[in-house]
Amino acid sequence: MSLITFEQDRPMDFIGLGRLCIDLNANEIHRPMEETRTFTKYVGGSPANITIAIAQLGLKAGFIGRVSDDQHGRFITHYLTEKGIDTSSVITDKSGSVTGLAFTEIKSPTDCSILMYRDNVADLKLETGDVSEEYIRNAKAIMISGTALAKSPSREAVFKAVELARKHKVVVFFDIDYRPWTWTSKDEVGIYCSLIAEKSDVILGGREEFDLLEAPFGPLEKDDRKTADRWLAHQAKIVLVKHGGDGSIAFTKDGQSFKGKIFPARNVVKTFGAGDSFAGAFIYGMMQGWNIDRCQEFGAASASIVVQSHSCSDAMPTAEQIQEHIDSYK
Amino acid sequence: MSLITFEQDRPMDFIGLGRLCIDLNANEIHRPMEETRTFTKYVGGSPANITIAIAQLGLKAGFIGRVSDDQHGRFITHYLTEKGIDTSSVITDKSGSVTGLAFTEIKSPTDCSILMYRDNVADLKLETGDVSEEYIRNAKAIMISGTALAKSPSREAVFKAVELARKHKVVVFFDIDYRPWTWTSKDEVGIYCSLIAEKSDVILGGREEFDLLEAPFGPLEKDDRKTADRWLAHQAKIVLVKHGGDGSIAFTKDGQSFKGKIFPARNVVKTFGAGDSFAGAFIYGMMQGWNIDRCQEFGAASASIVVQSHSCSDAMPTAEQIQEHIDSYK
Amino acid sequence: MSLITFEQDRPMDFIGLGRLCIDLNANEIHRPMEETRTFTKYVGGSPANITIAIAQLGLKAGFIGRVSDDQHGRFITHYLTEKGIDTSSVITDKSGSVTGLAFTEIKSPTDCSILMYRDNVADLKLETGDVSEEYIRNAKAIMISGTALAKSPSREAVFKAVELARKHKVVVFFDIDYRPWTWTSKDEVGIYCSLIAEKSDVILGGREEFDLLEAPFGPLEKDDRKTADRWLAHQAKIVLVKHGGDGSIAFTKDGQSFKGKIFPARNVVKTFGAGDSFAGAFIYGMMQGWNIDRCQEFGAASASIVVQSHSCSDAMPTAEQIQEHIDSYK
Amino acid sequence: MSLITFEQDRPMDFIGLGRLCIDLNANEIHRPMEETRTFTKYVGGSPANITIAIAQLGLKAGFIGRVSDDQHGRFITHYLTEKGIDTSSVITDKSGSVTGLAFTEIKSPTDCSILMYRDNVADLKLETGDVSEEYIRNAKAIMISGTALAKSPSREAVFKAVELARKHKVVVFFDIDYRPWTWTSKDEVGIYCSLIAEKSDVILGGREEFDLLEAPFGPLEKDDRKTADRWLAHQAKIVLVKHGGDGSIAFTKDGQSFKGKIFPARNVVKTFGAGDSFAGAFIYGMMQGWNIDRCQEFGAASASIVVQSHSCSDAMPTAEQIQEHIDSYK
Repeated sequence: MSLITFEQDRPMDFIGLGRLCIDLNANEIHRPMEETRTFTKYVGGSPANITIAIAQLGLKAGFIGRVSDDQHGRFITHYLTEKGIDTSSVITDKSGSVTGLAFTEIKSPTDCSILMYRDNVADLKLETGDVSEEYIRNAKAIMISGTALAKSPSREAVFKAVELARKHKVVVFFDIDYRPWTWTSKDEVGIYCSLIAEKSDVILGGREEFDLLEAPFGPLEKDDRKTADRWLAHQAKIVLVKHGGDGSIAFTKDGQSFKGKIFPARNVVKTFGAGDSFAGAFIYGMMQGWNIDRCQEFGAASASIVVQSHSCSDAMPTAEQIQEHIDSYK
Repeated sequence: MSLITFEQDRPMDFIGLGRLCIDLNANEIHRPMEETRTFTKYVGGSPANITIAIAQLGLKAGFIGRVSDDQHGRFITHYLTEKGIDTSSVITDKSGSVTGLAFTEIKSPTDCSILMYRDNVADLKLETGDVSEEYIRNAKAIMISGTALAKSPSREAVFKAVELARKHKVVVFFDIDYRPWTWTSKDEVGIYCSLIAEKSDVILGGREEFDLLEAPFGPLEKDDRKTADRWLAHQAKIVLVKHGGDGSIAFTKDGQSFKGKIFPARNVVKTFGAGDSFAGAFIYGMMQGWNIDRCQEFGAASASIVVQSHSCSDAMPTAEQIQEHIDSYK
Repeated sequence: MSLITFEQDRPMDFIGLGRLCIDLNANEIHRPMEETRTFTKYVGGSPANITIAIAQLGLKAGFIGRVSDDQHGRFITHYLTEKGIDTSSVITDKSGSVTGLAFTEIKSPTDCSILMYRDNVADLKLETGDVSEEYIRNAKAIMISGTALAKSPSREAVFKAVELARKHKVVVFFDIDYRPWTWTSKDEVGIYCSLIAEKSDVILGGREEFDLLEAPFGPLEKDDRKTADRWLAHQAKIVLVKHGGDGSIAFTKDGQSFKGKIFPARNVVKTFGAGDSFAGAFIYGMMQGWNIDRCQEFGAASASIVVQSHSCSDAMPTAEQIQEHIDSYK
Repeated sequence: MSLITFEQDRPMDFIGLGRLCIDLNANEIHRPMEETRTFTKYVGGSPANITIAIAQLGLKAGFIGRVSDDQHGRFITHYLTEKGIDTSSVITDKSGSVTGLAFTEIKSPTDCSILMYRDNVADLKLETGDVSEEYIRNAKAIMISGTALAKSPSREAVFKAVELARKHKVVVFFDIDYRPWTWTSKDEVGIYCSLIAEKSDVILGGREEFDLLEAPFGPLEKDDRKTADRWLAHQAKIVLVKHGGDGSIAFTKDGQSFKGKIFPARNVVKTFGAGDSFAGAFIYGMMQGWNIDRCQEFGAASASIVVQSHSCSDAMPTAEQIQEHIDSYK
């Protein structure tokens, strides 16, 4: 019997919620950003990337979010539509907000950083009124990005969406996706992400991200097993702790754990996008009813493809491409 | 067997958390406030009043809160100390905040209103760092006032306090205590109060207050039984729905319900303070191990005494006075 | 020839602009505020007091300001109306603002202090749209209080009012009236008050207040003569530097200076209100065409009356009372 | 005799003050921005461009401003230094601010627009403490950009700088440079720009910009002559009203006016940068002691060169290039 049951009578497979932004990736790489002069524009933001990955894999996806009322906002909505993603719940914010920007700097394949400009961003203007009970109950799963909890009114919109998802048996995926920008304090990160983690079916995060969730409530133990047990005692069926290049471990409600495979790097351009492509392919696998280690392998292969490319969203592979990549290592 | 178990090895009986303010009660009553010229000053705020009531009844009480760094803040701390309440977690806020003020207007015994001045108030400056795990685990019970959820950083301090209370088996009382001031939207009221209600052992609120909690998540049913079942399905053992002058109904985890008695009004001056004095005496009864209907009677008698007085906090009765009042009706 | 010419064809003598608030004066005096229990309510705020003083002296006065949409705001508007002041430009603010409060503490006749609560106050919500060119050009003089410059949008409303006053030859009185509350920084005080001082016909302030105006632009000289010359080089005809109990010195455009008389204190209750009653009577004298030293004597006598009373606004004397007081010292 | 006298004993010719930002110019032009994918980065912002123009023309220039503490801020400071501009008063803001961004869209040579992202920008964090009396009194002239008045604390820094400039006979140029972003209201634009215009020696602005300055104080007359007279009655010696493609008219204190020449367009890429290159060359001319119409011709020629290029700052010509351009039209 599967750990997670997806309601099969739903017209939509997957809803992403939260950050829709623009990546401005340096064209002249292997140098500091001060010395780059041109940038290429891509749709970005972790939940956007994951939703694009899932659509690219052939599932029916939609998105709940807000975009700015300008050329950048229109570019994002247009791009999602082109990828076959339903944008009926992607709202154009009229408050004068802007699109969040991520300038990426690639000093070397392993020395990458991001400069985020996230003041007054449209994605955090998401309101409870934007979250439709009808829209959510028509889906099998929803993905919450922790960044959407950084500020009101987006924070409240997330709580409403998760409560409605639980009410209608929509599987809740939670990607902690911690970004220091826009949060007021680390205690807020821990407190609000914990409240969502308690109500989530599957939680994905790095070791340091899980530490943030535990920090307000007592001394840190930095122990994956104890972390998993903490959340499995609530609603979670799977807790996946990521350890960067060392792969990830999935802990399941039935007491098992699965260490994920790693695909040795070939022609790595940068590390951005590895997490989002992993998540997209992993969730795809779960929705196919695959067992955990096959999901992990599929995720790792997808990540291995994306890090060879200049972009994240544009580089998301199809299921065939992922399978070929896996086969090429055998 | 009792519905609620209080850990007996704790040095402190009860902690109030949240609003500490000043009531400025019109001396010239039975007229609009525009025509009153003098006011008398009292300590006020629902959790302050309840804590004072409990201390007056002989229990060992403490408080977690912030007061302004001025004459009003010092008056409050001094008053609590005089009432025997531990103020080691009452912090003087240094940010330039002020004491919340409640000007009361008594047009007639049944036509009373409050004008609250709550911009930049000290009580909402409570921070997560002010909430000590040590302090909480030394208590049998803690009372959360919904007003403390109205704004950050007090909101996060409440989430931390409740999580620590659950971790250490401190009984969580939650008084919804909805005040329209300082909240950003009704959706925020519903969302954050619901998150605390899910984690509370005893919830007290009026019919309209419970409606606020249900409003963001679907159509309202306005049904006390369904409301009670909603929260009893989480951690609650007792849900007490107040219906103003018509008394209250307590619903318990074991499926019972208890309609509270009313003491016919004698010499009523105003309606303020009825709820807080009820709550204080009701909680006192529970901590004595009394059954629900005795707690309700004790609460109603206390309320009946306080409405005959000009103040709230100053008028809280002793256990003997309450018992005498009950006896006088027999 | 008079230093200042008032246009005689104007239906209104005087307009006050700015702060309308409430004083809550401790009834139990000669003790710290922590130990007082009752307060009496009066209309307060420096420009309100001055305007009331002028109306009490028999001139036709009006006011430009905003009051809160509650019992306190209505009390203020009603009180002004009763005093014969035109309130057609006193606007009820609908933004949820409150009335500024001043709790006065009288430890001894010479040890008085004020605790101001000025967060989100209605008076600072005054907007440029509230300032009517028609209203201003119908007056002989306007009084600007520096406190009205503390925050936008009131700050811009002041600049508009002063520009319109100059355009229509309405005499501009400027009372620096520095209150540390609500200002963001001392540099803002100096910069904005200087901009208004440059455009004013008569400037009133204490030595420390004038220092604030000079501080951003070079080392302080703390020299009354140099201070006066600075402003007389702009539009000012009279610069009046107040030295508390030591009286005041008036410097005039024609190079003269006048040291004001002091009335020895008799039965002083508190020092509050001395400045406002002085200003009201001084301006009254100027509008009668009196010479400077008679204006100063009239002002000092008025102040000497007000400090013998519990209130400011309620205690403003008539012209006959002031004259009797002066005569009583002869 | 010259209208304007520059103090000759100053080590620095010119100080720019205010906006330092980044232009991201679409590489694929003649299409909407939604369809462009790559952008080239340049230093931008009107006062930055003018200062760069002046340095390129061989004068000794400096700048007073704030840049963000990130790669974009460092790029700007480095670029100014490379152009020979003194950056000792260019401060790295540590408050978490960002660099203002201007995405330029070139649909056709005459249909250009700018999308500005200006939330929490470093340039508006300029503080009064950043403005050094020593730095200002060492210069012959200072250029104030109206955009620097859009918000505190930059607004107050401007008032301080202008007051110090007047005190030390530093010629004040004021470019209204109205940008709708970051201003709270049009009344604020008019009020604060008017206060600076009153204290400026030379004022540059478009017809609509001058209208903004007049709007708060009475009905608009939209008459260049009356506009000029309004400001010439204060400190201004030259008021230059720009009429876009129709050229500009300079009105002088001595009652004359000069209609500027236009250079017929050749190979225009876009219209951006025309105003800033004009201003830089015009000011250069004035500092050479040229008569007004020669300054205007020099400015127009510089603008005519810059509109043929993809950038603003990078394209600023030398004095020889401008002269050659003028000669080529003869």
